[in-house]
Amino acid sequence: MQTLTVDLGDRSYPIFIGEQLLAREDLFKPYLAGKQVCIVSNETVAPLYLQSVEKALNGAQIIHVLLRDGEEYKTLTELNSIFDTLLNHRHNRTTTLIALGGGVVGDMTGFAAACYQRGVDFIQVPTTLLSQVDSSVGGKTGVNHPLGKNMIGAFHQPRCVIADTDALKTLPQREFSAGIAEVLKYGLICDLEFYHWLQLEMDGLMARDPQLLREAIYRSCVNKAKVVAADEREGGLRAILNLGHTFGHAIETAQGYGNWLHGEAVAVGMLMAADLSARLGWIKSGEVDMLRELLQRARLPIAAPKGMDVQQFLQLMAVDKKVLDGQLRLVLLREIGSAVVTTEFPLNELKACIAAAA
Amino acid sequence: MQTLTVDLGDRSYPIFIGEQLLAREDLFKPYLAGKQVCIVSNETVAPLYLQSVEKALNGAQIIHVLLRDGEEYKTLTELNSIFDTLLNHRHNRTTTLIALGGGVVGDMTGFAAACYQRGVDFIQVPTTLLSQVDSSVGGKTGVNHPLGKNMIGAFHQPRCVIADTDALKTLPQREFSAGIAEVLKYGLICDLEFYHWLQLEMDGLMARDPQLLREAIYRSCVNKAKVVAADEREGGLRAILNLGHTFGHAIETAQGYGNWLHGEAVAVGMLMAADLSARLGWIKSGEVDMLRELLQRARLPIAAPKGMDVQQFLQLMAVDKKVLDGQLRLVLLREIGSAVVTTEFPLNELKACIAAAA
Repeated sequence: MQTLTVDLGDRSYPIFIGEQLLAREDLFKPYLAGKQVCIVSNETVAPLYLQSVEKALNGAQIIHVLLRDGEEYKTLTELNSIFDTLLNHRHNRTTTLIALGGGVVGDMTGFAAACYQRGVDFIQVPTTLLSQVDSSVGGKTGVNHPLGKNMIGAFHQPRCVIADTDALKTLPQREFSAGIAEVLKYGLICDLEFYHWLQLEMDGLMARDPQLLREAIYRSCVNKAKVVAADEREGGLRAILNLGHTFGHAIETAQGYGNWLHGEAVAVGMLMAADLSARLGWIKSGEVDMLRELLQRARLPIAAPKGMDVQQFLQLMAVDKKVLDGQLRLVLLREIGSAVVTTEFPLNELKACIAAAA
Repeated sequence: MQTLTVDLGDRSYPIFIGEQLLAREDLFKPYLAGKQVCIVSNETVAPLYLQSVEKALNGAQIIHVLLRDGEEYKTLTELNSIFDTLLNHRHNRTTTLIALGGGVVGDMTGFAAACYQRGVDFIQVPTTLLSQVDSSVGGKTGVNHPLGKNMIGAFHQPRCVIADTDALKTLPQREFSAGIAEVLKYGLICDLEFYHWLQLEMDGLMARDPQLLREAIYRSCVNKAKVVAADEREGGLRAILNLGHTFGHAIETAQGYGNWLHGEAVAVGMLMAADLSARLGWIKSGEVDMLRELLQRARLPIAAPKGMDVQQFLQLMAVDKKVLDGQLRLVLLREIGSAVVTTEFPLNELKACIAAAA
């Protein structure tokens, strides 16, 4: 097991990464606020791991809520089912919520914890690669709105994160690849050495070699923790974590949540951001080609969905949270391993970049 | 105009109290985060004051949302209409929400601001006595759930509070009285001198004398600000602000939101808390009688609604947020002017106290 700490003063918390962690009482118990525990999971994950976690919580008053599986259920309405269950069982302010599942479960459970009786504790137990390297760390929680992803939410940090790499054994191939997209992101935005390591080890990673997996998750979390600690509420630096996300959100919104996976949309979005960076002369076009090849080795898409045109992209990108006072801000690559947030790009280059991907 | 500051470090904010404040550009402008402004009000208040506030915001990009008027609309569904409007008008993270109305508008606007894109700024412009002395100060925001009041919410502090006493001229008598209940509360829990002043000046206050009103609001806010500054997230001391609220919430829930006003329920709840304190020998029964008389002078109810019995009270009080790990905690009066939070009361005394009020 490897451990690292997200350094946020009195909101600091540990991340545990390794095999066979789900059943470890010693990892859960110190982070329970009281006797009441509510495990939030979904129909897919619960049959696999709920029993194991319940065993680790032996002695607590445990209830659970099973959400419907999928990004299309990341809504205020579905969120309310968590509140219904908590209130029906009279859970009070000392309850602890446990998010057992992927990013949707984590985001919704965290937001429910942020709002239930104006805030209770929660623990992240991410079971997908994407959530282990990204959404479970950093305290961003929320739900979608028909007019935009993650538009309603809160910053609410978990008490700890327990990332069991064994859970990845049952992960469908598409979801695994989607997680790799975010792993690659850390290399691109702030860790050139990690990016080179990923170029070297991609095939072993795709074969889910346990050692390589643990190293990739650990290194991703170290990078994320560093950025989050420097900018908890996304005042500046943290925005670089959104590399590819503004393009990606447009794709997800256009396709309807759940048809493209978040990581798949981000993969194409990162490639578009790299392409635009090359058009601005910041990186070499050969580096864009190498990224494209790496995404292909990770079995990720490298082009926008059929039917999306430049106008639709621009329209959907304008409502993204990264728009500040009407100005579209994008995360681009000053060089491989170094991202910047900028509004300084000619509109015609942006259009050309979209046209090339669409 | 009188000004005081709620002292919360980098979340500190001023409260402005006085006449003719709604149209004062100089009070609003310094607290806008950007050009976009969304005024949230309701069907009753907007026709009276919306135009005036819009004029004060001259130059901003203003939109507004009108909520349905009443506690029964303080729901997640109604909250969503604020998000719909903000997103339809592409308001971004630099938008400022303005709550123009009573406690329901303030709580919902504050919660919408807490959640919209994970947090934007907001300004409280309370137009009822209750909201001027209580809900607009302290950062408690939220909505109700069918199983309990304010069960879903957040702590989110406003950038400033603008309490215009002119707005109280149009306030219906019942609502005015409901506000006086919370004013009395401050005297009871932490300000004996203020309590004596209220005994002396109650008739002038009920006649809405402007000088007396401003003084009562100022003194109430000073007391509330002191308690909130000492305990922002209700870890301890702040709970004394809930004098009468656990009993009161039971009444409100039993009657259905909106039939009894919050302040009316709190009035009866405070009398019940005083009665229980007397039964424990902490205050004199003559002091309970004096409080009863004072509530009557303020035209407030002094008995629980017909049909509520001891069992129903206990049942509904058990789901209140003040229940910690199964133990019912109540705010009681150690003496007039000094409240304590305690679990130390015999159940039979509690039952006798409820029976006497019901």
